[in-house]
Amino acid sequence: MATNKNFNFNKKQNYSSSELFKKLSTGDVIALSQAITLIESENLAHKETANELIKLSFSSHNKSLRLGITGVPGVGKSTFIESFGEIIATSGKKLAVLAIDPSSQQTGGSILGDKTRMEELGKKSNVFIRPSPAGNTLGGVARSTRESILLCEAAGFDIILIETVGVGQSETEVHSMVDFFLLLMLSGAGDELQGIKRGIMEMADLVVINKSDGNNVTKAKSAQKLLQSALHYFPPHLSGWTTKTLTCSSLKNTGIKEIWGECLNYHQQMTESGYLTQNRNKQNKNWFQQSITLYLKNVFLKRPKIKSLIDLKEEQILNGSISPFQAADEVTSLL
Amino acid sequence: MATNKNFNFNKKQNYSSSELFKKLSTGDVIALSQAITLIESENLAHKETANELIKLSFSSHNKSLRLGITGVPGVGKSTFIESFGEIIATSGKKLAVLAIDPSSQQTGGSILGDKTRMEELGKKSNVFIRPSPAGNTLGGVARSTRESILLCEAAGFDIILIETVGVGQSETEVHSMVDFFLLLMLSGAGDELQGIKRGIMEMADLVVINKSDGNNVTKAKSAQKLLQSALHYFPPHLSGWTTKTLTCSSLKNTGIKEIWGECLNYHQQMTESGYLTQNRNKQNKNWFQQSITLYLKNVFLKRPKIKSLIDLKEEQILNGSISPFQAADEVTSLL
Repeated sequence: MATNKNFNFNKKQNYSSSELFKKLSTGDVIALSQAITLIESENLAHKETANELIKLSFSSHNKSLRLGITGVPGVGKSTFIESFGEIIATSGKKLAVLAIDPSSQQTGGSILGDKTRMEELGKKSNVFIRPSPAGNTLGGVARSTRESILLCEAAGFDIILIETVGVGQSETEVHSMVDFFLLLMLSGAGDELQGIKRGIMEMADLVVINKSDGNNVTKAKSAQKLLQSALHYFPPHLSGWTTKTLTCSSLKNTGIKEIWGECLNYHQQMTESGYLTQNRNKQNKNWFQQSITLYLKNVFLKRPKIKSLIDLKEEQILNGSISPFQAADEVTSLL
Repeated sequence: MATNKNFNFNKKQNYSSSELFKKLSTGDVIALSQAITLIESENLAHKETANELIKLSFSSHNKSLRLGITGVPGVGKSTFIESFGEIIATSGKKLAVLAIDPSSQQTGGSILGDKTRMEELGKKSNVFIRPSPAGNTLGGVARSTRESILLCEAAGFDIILIETVGVGQSETEVHSMVDFFLLLMLSGAGDELQGIKRGIMEMADLVVINKSDGNNVTKAKSAQKLLQSALHYFPPHLSGWTTKTLTCSSLKNTGIKEIWGECLNYHQQMTESGYLTQNRNKQNKNWFQQSITLYLKNVFLKRPKIKSLIDLKEEQILNGSISPFQAADEVTSLL
């Protein structure tokens, strides 16, 4: 089903992709919303226009910074984005906030509740906030988020902030579509980490201990110190960038400017070194390959004859009557 | 090419899988070597016998512990395994040491140099050491290593120690075939971590700081303390196990018994909780799915017509004329 919150595509309106692209290129946020709705649509009739639109946007290069923000529920992501976005917008940059949420089908778009909290930010003329799409699969959501990034860039947005909503695979997906990956944490180790997938911390370009206010400041500072030492034991980033740990209070608006400073440092260094382009090329290649893999997994291997054989073999593996490799041989001999 | 260091399969010898299995079931290491050579063989004529052998071995359950050991070159893996294996063998357990080395084709089997260093260990009657196979692909090496584990277990080995040789993907591969994953490190952070893939540390069930001897003891102890605190910031293992950090000296033979104690604790706890079986079932299912994925990637997508389209699309993605998703659509529409 199409998410047609903004426009009714069921009406026989003929959107020409070049017209829409021309409008969004001027920074028209109505056209941008419309374009995103179009690429999120699962109506086949919109597919061709959407594809043309992406083609036009893909070739329009700009000097954006794609920023991923992740952290478990309760870490204060929305409040952080509100404070952080305020600083970005005040600096004169155009900011787009997108969310990726593979669970949104169940919850009906869990960023919607947060949207009211981001209301102040959303009122600014140079800020565009888009709730998470109601996609069917993580692959689908990832694709539409990634295409939305391109549309926002074509519309002249400088900073594209992608927030993970929900837990699970989405952190890895977000990491693979951004230039800079920020992990929000709390000072108390343990319980609140349950939701973070192993390996996420090592992906972070910046670790921020949030809620460093009131009685919590000392705890946050010592957590920062400990993490900073621990990060030395992580293998270095391919970019040559050294991950820092900072503290902040989204509530008291402290430490936020320093975080934005780190982002700008990163952007400058990586643009100069050529890593930004190199990494985006690598990401594009990965997205291409991953899309093919996902198709093979979700469509090709789900064809009835193959699927029933796979199900049977899995049963036989679990009851110990066939080894995983032999089972795979039997399946692949049919392909 | 078949690795026929032990037996010449080119001669018209007819090995019956049930005969070979019967022999290896008695713990006959000659038969075990022969069986491993058979499953490593890429000669199609051996395939059927090899498959039957694996089928027989797969259904012979035993109470083994599969132990993975990883660490960058220079960390002292071979010397560690020599000391560690000594303790295992002395405790009366039967120990098999296998190596996984995707680079062995280039280096001609890089564990061979180490083999002399493991000479003392190899002389013991209850120890079996097998150099790494000369496979063509990581997928192939992983498969033959995994099948070798089954053969060793069928031959009554209690502890199967899998060592990673070389760097890169092999750590993840080893992690996906063992019950317990041990990461060897050195006290100095930084340079020597270059070779560890990001995310490996979070996979470890035990982190050991090696070379804690002489002037190095204090440094090792403080690295241990720091890492132990840092590990609290990692998300918990699915098994409920808490990763510990220990120090040891393979040279002075100190701290090794404690490491073995941790392995035994783990084995007992995970057997009792049922996690060991649950995890092996999950691994088997993953190996099945991964084998199919590898086939699709390495064989199916390499068919000339598809491959040339993929190559063309990758070029177009890199020069910005098509988005990764549209390129994927064009490829998958042919499948």
